[in-house]
Amino acid sequence: MKILQIGASGVLGRAVAVALGRDAELVIASRSAEHPVDLTDPASIAALYESVGPVDAVVCTAGVTPFKPLEELTRADYLAGLTDKLLGQIELVRQGIAHVSDGGSFTLVSGVLAYDPIVTGAVAATVNGGLDSFVRAAAIELPRGQRINAVSATVFEQAWDAYGEYFPGHKPVDAAEAARAFVKSVRGRQTGQIYRAGY
Amino acid sequence: MKILQIGASGVLGRAVAVALGRDAELVIASRSAEHPVDLTDPASIAALYESVGPVDAVVCTAGVTPFKPLEELTRADYLAGLTDKLLGQIELVRQGIAHVSDGGSFTLVSGVLAYDPIVTGAVAATVNGGLDSFVRAAAIELPRGQRINAVSATVFEQAWDAYGEYFPGHKPVDAAEAARAFVKSVRGRQTGQIYRAGY
Repeated sequence: MKILQIGASGVLGRAVAVALGRDAELVIASRSAEHPVDLTDPASIAALYESVGPVDAVVCTAGVTPFKPLEELTRADYLAGLTDKLLGQIELVRQGIAHVSDGGSFTLVSGVLAYDPIVTGAVAATVNGGLDSFVRAAAIELPRGQRINAVSATVFEQAWDAYGEYFPGHKPVDAAEAARAFVKSVRGRQTGQIYRAGY
Repeated sequence: MKILQIGASGVLGRAVAVALGRDAELVIASRSAEHPVDLTDPASIAALYESVGPVDAVVCTAGVTPFKPLEELTRADYLAGLTDKLLGQIELVRQGIAHVSDGGSFTLVSGVLAYDPIVTGAVAATVNGGLDSFVRAAAIELPRGQRINAVSATVFEQAWDAYGEYFPGHKPVDAAEAARAFVKSVRGRQTGQIYRAGY
């Protein structure tokens, strides 16, 4: 099985790479990897698929959104989040259909803030909610038995020192726990699922 | 009570205008109304708020998304839906904070496809899911007791002849039923709610 993973330098990305890399050929893409890609640039996504060739699974652990108090968010902030984590992952699917094998899968990353908001999280919430609904909708139309799921995790234990203060009362989850959901999505047969990790 | 309603020519908009207009001063804005507005154009939203002056509630029954089979959707189609129904309504809130009274409200329109997808509905699903999560997130940060809710309806009885074939097995709802949820949002005190109508 050949898996293309976008983003592998963050807490989640490293855990997912470990979990998926045990028994698969794992190709890593990111802004700075051997296979460079910028989620906001559709041409770079096209170039990535061309250089990597056919794959059995596309896994994304990348995508950023601005965090600011609601009254400080500009239209540009919303557009930045929408074109990076949301439209960037949608573009991975849109272009990826032609490059993923029959029965192959897409696994996207959304997040808890869609349902359990925090102060400064309005853009992240919007993006994550859009992603979860996109996954449910795309699942019923993907061709050739292709599947799609999302992993929606809460804040990670490994990032708690840096971000815990923004998540009062939330219970962090081990990134390895979220990585299991990626394995379930890639190696199982489910589709249209939002796998919640830690909440 | 002075209410600004964006979009009042569609099935839902007409029903909401009737329900809200019974005991309020209702100002109607749309692409072609006395108060013109284009949701995709932030300058036109700014001009609208300037011309209407302070209001107690902003109600939106406008916003469009492309409908196409998943494999025919272009990046431009996603961007069109995101910048119209999603970012357009977010912009109504973002700019509206300064124009809505203390304790006043925003009521946005999302839709059933976020959770119960149909073929050709991937953009609508993405937009609606994003809106529902934006509403939950914005609700905890709006200043001066301002509130925000969304109304998420299934297909309307009044539109069933035109669209029913795309919603196999769905049960349509009277637009007047969805209009009740707008009244609850505007005249009640709840916030951060997604009012489902007909599903």
